[in-house]
Amino acid sequence: MVNIAVLGYGTVGSGVVRVLTENSKKIDKKAGTPVRVKYVLDLRDFPGDPVQEKIVHDFSIILNDPEVKVVVEVMGGLKPAYEFTRAALEAGKSVCTSNKELVAEHGAEFLDLAREKNVNYLFEASCGGGIPVIRALNSSLTAEDIDEVSGILNGTTNYILSEMGEKGSGFDDALKEAQELGYAERNPEADVEGYDACRKIAILSSLAFGHTIKYRNIHTEGITKISHADMVFAKEAGFAVKLLASAYKVPDDKGANSYFALVAPFLVRNGHPLYNVNGVFNAVYIHGNMLGDSMFYGSGAGSLPTASAVVGDVIDAVKHLSRTLFVFWDSEELKLVDNGSAERAFFIRVPVEKLSDARIRFEAKDEILSDEIKDEAALITAVMSENEFERKFAEAGYVISRIRINK
Amino acid sequence: MVNIAVLGYGTVGSGVVRVLTENSKKIDKKAGTPVRVKYVLDLRDFPGDPVQEKIVHDFSIILNDPEVKVVVEVMGGLKPAYEFTRAALEAGKSVCTSNKELVAEHGAEFLDLAREKNVNYLFEASCGGGIPVIRALNSSLTAEDIDEVSGILNGTTNYILSEMGEKGSGFDDALKEAQELGYAERNPEADVEGYDACRKIAILSSLAFGHTIKYRNIHTEGITKISHADMVFAKEAGFAVKLLASAYKVPDDKGANSYFALVAPFLVRNGHPLYNVNGVFNAVYIHGNMLGDSMFYGSGAGSLPTASAVVGDVIDAVKHLSRTLFVFWDSEELKLVDNGSAERAFFIRVPVEKLSDARIRFEAKDEILSDEIKDEAALITAVMSENEFERKFAEAGYVISRIRINK
Repeated sequence: MVNIAVLGYGTVGSGVVRVLTENSKKIDKKAGTPVRVKYVLDLRDFPGDPVQEKIVHDFSIILNDPEVKVVVEVMGGLKPAYEFTRAALEAGKSVCTSNKELVAEHGAEFLDLAREKNVNYLFEASCGGGIPVIRALNSSLTAEDIDEVSGILNGTTNYILSEMGEKGSGFDDALKEAQELGYAERNPEADVEGYDACRKIAILSSLAFGHTIKYRNIHTEGITKISHADMVFAKEAGFAVKLLASAYKVPDDKGANSYFALVAPFLVRNGHPLYNVNGVFNAVYIHGNMLGDSMFYGSGAGSLPTASAVVGDVIDAVKHLSRTLFVFWDSEELKLVDNGSAERAFFIRVPVEKLSDARIRFEAKDEILSDEIKDEAALITAVMSENEFERKFAEAGYVISRIRINK
Repeated sequence: MVNIAVLGYGTVGSGVVRVLTENSKKIDKKAGTPVRVKYVLDLRDFPGDPVQEKIVHDFSIILNDPEVKVVVEVMGGLKPAYEFTRAALEAGKSVCTSNKELVAEHGAEFLDLAREKNVNYLFEASCGGGIPVIRALNSSLTAEDIDEVSGILNGTTNYILSEMGEKGSGFDDALKEAQELGYAERNPEADVEGYDACRKIAILSSLAFGHTIKYRNIHTEGITKISHADMVFAKEAGFAVKLLASAYKVPDDKGANSYFALVAPFLVRNGHPLYNVNGVFNAVYIHGNMLGDSMFYGSGAGSLPTASAVVGDVIDAVKHLSRTLFVFWDSEELKLVDNGSAERAFFIRVPVEKLSDARIRFEAKDEILSDEIKDEAALITAVMSENEFERKFAEAGYVISRIRINK
């Protein structure tokens, strides 16, 4: 039997306890031994809940109990999760987490520490909820030279954009609806400004490329400026608007690679695997030099899918109690190239009377008119660097909105 | 350094050598040691090809060389692949394969033998080419009680159906085009009759449910009867026609599970993750009791994606040279329930003058008319058992075609 402790009895923590209870037969078989929750750490009490008898308020009880071999950290945030994780690993306990902030900030550090202590630091649930993309990067796509990881990594914003696209709602109404349905927080900033997706792509790109990509260096834009008119023209041209978190490399002149990363709304063409990912679903697109296109799709959030990924990690930790699993992510920083030099096409909306100027200025490749919005037109620009686009954009002075186009 | 041998220098075998050569730096780092091809077994010689110096015609050279730790079996077929695989495992060498026939027929037997010899039998490339679905089932979705695995597992038939749907071609023309493009064999029977997909779903369902599902017991229908008219009405009603290989369980009256499996053309509704999987791409949909919907999408065939999956297995085999990885698939047979008792809705085409009779007889839930084909109508029946549907179908006598509807 292996005893585990769960830190935090919130949405994910209670899901972890439920998955371990409801699927215990299968889980024990796959782990090779019964897996039992010995403690649940929470500030609160839960009178009447069967978990109450396992509740402790003091982390040192868990830390000092040699029977606890695996600690599940599902508290979120940096404090006190950082201290607890460090102490648990130092004490020779494996840690499984869904805490994207902590993994993005200290992933490489904890992986080193885990290796030193012959235990594991596992974080499948930190990106894309129940989608097993981290294990795919670590164990399956190992023969690949991965050149792109792009994902729809935030269910809240994807729900809002899907609603705007399908129902014609404006951003504020769609956000309000998402809040009423419990898909968005009362303070939605971390989601709608792209901060959540930024942490996740920092983790995925660090794993894909092997070195640390610091989330602070990832250019991040949210979806608050996306309007109904953008949706109308995008749809007319056969695109969907998605908040993409994307990291990719481009061979430079000297044969080395330039690495780019950003989080921003993109137009995704019909036919791209991410085009049809709607509602609260998440998906991660990976392109490898041998594999070509691949995509992993599933529930990106929610108590049970996320908990299922955490428990999958717990099973792996139990099967490898004193053997560190291979994860290629070291603490060396991978320097990103400034987005200004990234080359891409842009979608712009302009007043209809500026169309002929815009056509020439932006070397338009395509032009979109709408029956609904007659005083505007939209254009697809030629491929150009972001810097060049910004210069033209400033010079023109009349562009109503602009959205990057995914290749 | 670890030496490997590749059995068969055909499409996949040559891809394996290419992946190992082009991505060698990454691969050696992930394997923790250089991985080198020492022998390539083939009946032919390849003068002028750098592989020539590694070519051997006699398997016993490989078998008796203690330096060879991993054998890549990419010959296909049962003979002599069965004997070679058995001998290699008996000799304490791990085997990595893309051979779906062999895995479907002898997977559990080889897994037992590998466990006994402390080596590995790995077959990620046997289902869905480069899609890492087998490792997801074995290592990621371990906390799940999986209730359905359904896939578009054959690129040839998916290409044909996509062409028929998009371009309005008939089956024969689409097949001919697929053959000209190299997507279909000159003898296309294994693909178009569903035999290939049947082997693959036998493997995936055995892994998902833990016991052996024999492919011979899986009801299998191909796509040769799908017509242009089916496509017209299906599209009109918002469905795509897909050859699905599907295995699922349904709780029965006594609280136990009934297991069903079949390969057949299905109508897939717009909105289902598999609806937009087009062309030669493959995808596997998995539903788990905690996870909900998930999907894995990618290149289902082709030299390099398949080879990339084989090499991913080689890396795993090298990292675990004398430690058997956990795979839950035992030799106990999982009895399937006869499809006759499976409950579902059906799509039928009927002559327009029989519409009112058909409406009542099949308890129609929906009705589809077409501007293109005016002398027919299509119906969506009520949900009923396959047996009941067959009875009504025989009694009516006028149904032009019928296709199952995916839920």
